[in-house]
Amino acid sequence: MRPPRPGTPGSGGRRTFGRKSMAMDAISVIRTKRDRGEFSDDQIDWVIDAYTRGEVADYQMAALNMAILLNGMNRREIARWTAAMIASGERMDFSSLSRPTADKHSTGGVGDKITLPLAPLVAACGAAVPQLSGRGLGHTGGTLDKLESIPGWRALLSNEEMLSVLDEVGAVICAAGDGLAPADKKLYALRDVTGTVEAIPLIASSIMSKKIAEGTGSLVLDVKVGTGAFMKTIEDARELASTMVGLGTDHGVRTVALLTDMSTPLGLTAGNALEVRESVEVLAGGGPSDVVQLTLALAREMLDAAGVKDADPEKALADGSAMDAWRRMIAAQGGDPDAPLPTSREQHVVTAPSTGVLTRLDAYDIGIAAWRLGAGRARKEDPVQAAAGVELHAKPGDRVTAGQPLLTLHTDTPERFAGALEAVEGSYDVSEPGTRYPVNPIVLDRIA
Amino acid sequence: MRPPRPGTPGSGGRRTFGRKSMAMDAISVIRTKRDRGEFSDDQIDWVIDAYTRGEVADYQMAALNMAILLNGMNRREIARWTAAMIASGERMDFSSLSRPTADKHSTGGVGDKITLPLAPLVAACGAAVPQLSGRGLGHTGGTLDKLESIPGWRALLSNEEMLSVLDEVGAVICAAGDGLAPADKKLYALRDVTGTVEAIPLIASSIMSKKIAEGTGSLVLDVKVGTGAFMKTIEDARELASTMVGLGTDHGVRTVALLTDMSTPLGLTAGNALEVRESVEVLAGGGPSDVVQLTLALAREMLDAAGVKDADPEKALADGSAMDAWRRMIAAQGGDPDAPLPTSREQHVVTAPSTGVLTRLDAYDIGIAAWRLGAGRARKEDPVQAAAGVELHAKPGDRVTAGQPLLTLHTDTPERFAGALEAVEGSYDVSEPGTRYPVNPIVLDRIA
Repeated sequence: MRPPRPGTPGSGGRRTFGRKSMAMDAISVIRTKRDRGEFSDDQIDWVIDAYTRGEVADYQMAALNMAILLNGMNRREIARWTAAMIASGERMDFSSLSRPTADKHSTGGVGDKITLPLAPLVAACGAAVPQLSGRGLGHTGGTLDKLESIPGWRALLSNEEMLSVLDEVGAVICAAGDGLAPADKKLYALRDVTGTVEAIPLIASSIMSKKIAEGTGSLVLDVKVGTGAFMKTIEDARELASTMVGLGTDHGVRTVALLTDMSTPLGLTAGNALEVRESVEVLAGGGPSDVVQLTLALAREMLDAAGVKDADPEKALADGSAMDAWRRMIAAQGGDPDAPLPTSREQHVVTAPSTGVLTRLDAYDIGIAAWRLGAGRARKEDPVQAAAGVELHAKPGDRVTAGQPLLTLHTDTPERFAGALEAVEGSYDVSEPGTRYPVNPIVLDRIA
Repeated sequence: MRPPRPGTPGSGGRRTFGRKSMAMDAISVIRTKRDRGEFSDDQIDWVIDAYTRGEVADYQMAALNMAILLNGMNRREIARWTAAMIASGERMDFSSLSRPTADKHSTGGVGDKITLPLAPLVAACGAAVPQLSGRGLGHTGGTLDKLESIPGWRALLSNEEMLSVLDEVGAVICAAGDGLAPADKKLYALRDVTGTVEAIPLIASSIMSKKIAEGTGSLVLDVKVGTGAFMKTIEDARELASTMVGLGTDHGVRTVALLTDMSTPLGLTAGNALEVRESVEVLAGGGPSDVVQLTLALAREMLDAAGVKDADPEKALADGSAMDAWRRMIAAQGGDPDAPLPTSREQHVVTAPSTGVLTRLDAYDIGIAAWRLGAGRARKEDPVQAAAGVELHAKPGDRVTAGQPLLTLHTDTPERFAGALEAVEGSYDVSEPGTRYPVNPIVLDRIA
């Protein structure tokens, strides 16, 4: 009575002869999660493949993402989702390199420019750093957007170019090629513009599918916690970190995660060119202490995971070898490390309302302000402004004087100031002079 | 310190000078509902307008729809959402007609072809019926898809053509013009393909925005309840009905709702041409008794709401005047009421497994089967098959004999049979001979 298994209406669904499976179509996959059900392996394999091929439309995947965000996925579903994204494209292989590979991934924070000084620093210490990075996601900046503010610098490299830069310089920061986890590439851009960034299953599978497909031997995860991070609580951050460490370990990648503070912006800048400038300061042996501390902590983890013994990253910052690697890395991708960085056409200064101690400066609000000033994008096809962003003149714990500059807002399009000002309104507290402010560690936990 | 209110990044957001409002962008609107917040009036006005203009993308609206489906909207939000959709386009005016207007809307069920005999029947009794109808939504059929199986018939009329058919024939069934609630038109198509049909706030506002903008004087709502309806429980159906009756009354439309049974398909057919054939049987004085009963019940409500006294719809079916109105209505829109209807290229018969009483025949399963056979669409740009669908040879309460035909599946593309057969598997129960089956009323409740 039953003919051979067919496709389904308008789907060309996965054919699984010889055993019972539901006919596949996007709507029934969406309904499964909408109605709090559990995906089958076949549903996951089919929807990722069909979305990659364009058979499942962006609007269908957007509805599915929101259902996943609100109703969750379990460990089995996340593992399968990740494997399906890896299987959507090619896998790279760094076994021809003479050095061990170490990669780092941050879950994203405000002012998080750490990749910029970190990659050349670790390269200068003897590991190879194949850093495939992304663009702005939600209110956090994107490493590629930042580096693109350097005149001439190119994010897009072929696999051959990437390997060649990695071999010569020891570090490369570039966009993942079209062939690597193409499903994730499409999903990442879509989530950014549909309010579906903040979902642990989607974050974990997105990060790990790229990192596993990329073929790094070891991986250090910087999982941010706090108002400016996607994970607002240490519990959520632990769940994300342990999910990712598990996924990495299962695929043979030595994976460790640091949980780090993102209640206030990292360093003194949030914005593309502004953060490049600060990164160069760190490479020159200066820069804000939180950025330096975190860069060194992550460098030590990466070198340890890669099995590089007796490296001294602090010395590599001090003796200029990290800066040298940075200059060679930028130049190898067409950038001019000596070219002046773009500066904003318009600035607006926010001053301290009273004299006292700055006890709070909210990372999320500053991130939203930078985004509204033009540092991030509202739709995936939007450009970003290289010079837009927020510059901080004080950090929590600092004493401030009434009327002194607290923040400088930068943009090329002054009609954006009002939205940014709304975002920073209420983003800081100035307490009475003499208020004690505890010194909080930047690294909150470590999961291996 | 604050410049005049600007737009927001990539939004061109609503300008509300002189009072505080959040800068508008699609992502923050999505986040509001995702995080279980309540929309402001400004957010609703902005997102409906921006979606209509194409500034908010389909994928953003799809994510928002899913968040609304899972997290709900309150009465105020629904009222504003509806008003914003009405305001997105023009409003029609039937005050020039000599007769009072009455419209009917069904929330959608399997085999629900009632509009086809009802509109000409009510016209034959003296009211004018401006029936703006839709296309297939989810597993239920669309009135326009059904009528398009009549050779030559056109769903698309200009407002002038529509008024002229209405004036001459007394009834018109056509697509809502592009000018009428264009926001709803886009949303309706999008919900259909993103698994977001089954949301009370979206259903209520979709229906009522069109009906209010259309300018009918009175409106009878047929709110379906049961497995084949979007409302599975009588409580949900009552909530939807009272939401819609409230919205109609607030806008000066005399509105009444009947809650009717949709646990099993209406009549003996589900599919486009199949349902036209059955409708013509009803207009000829025959047809399945449930279809006749419901057609008459709705006709009496419409005539009552329109203030037409002493009409006798039963007589209008018996004496051929309803059939006459049907033939004129079809012909006025280019259709040939005498042309043979398309028939399917392939049939597959499902037989009764045992002798006894058919005690269940599930409307949802039959709807899914008809949809998979080609009667409905998986993506909004897909065509439908005129001849595809399911024909029933018995209804719950009927006695059946082992091996007798229970269902005939129709399609032009036989590879669709397997998916349909999966859907009908388990869709019916045949109990022992002599099992008593209660006669259930078709109208379950009335809300005025």
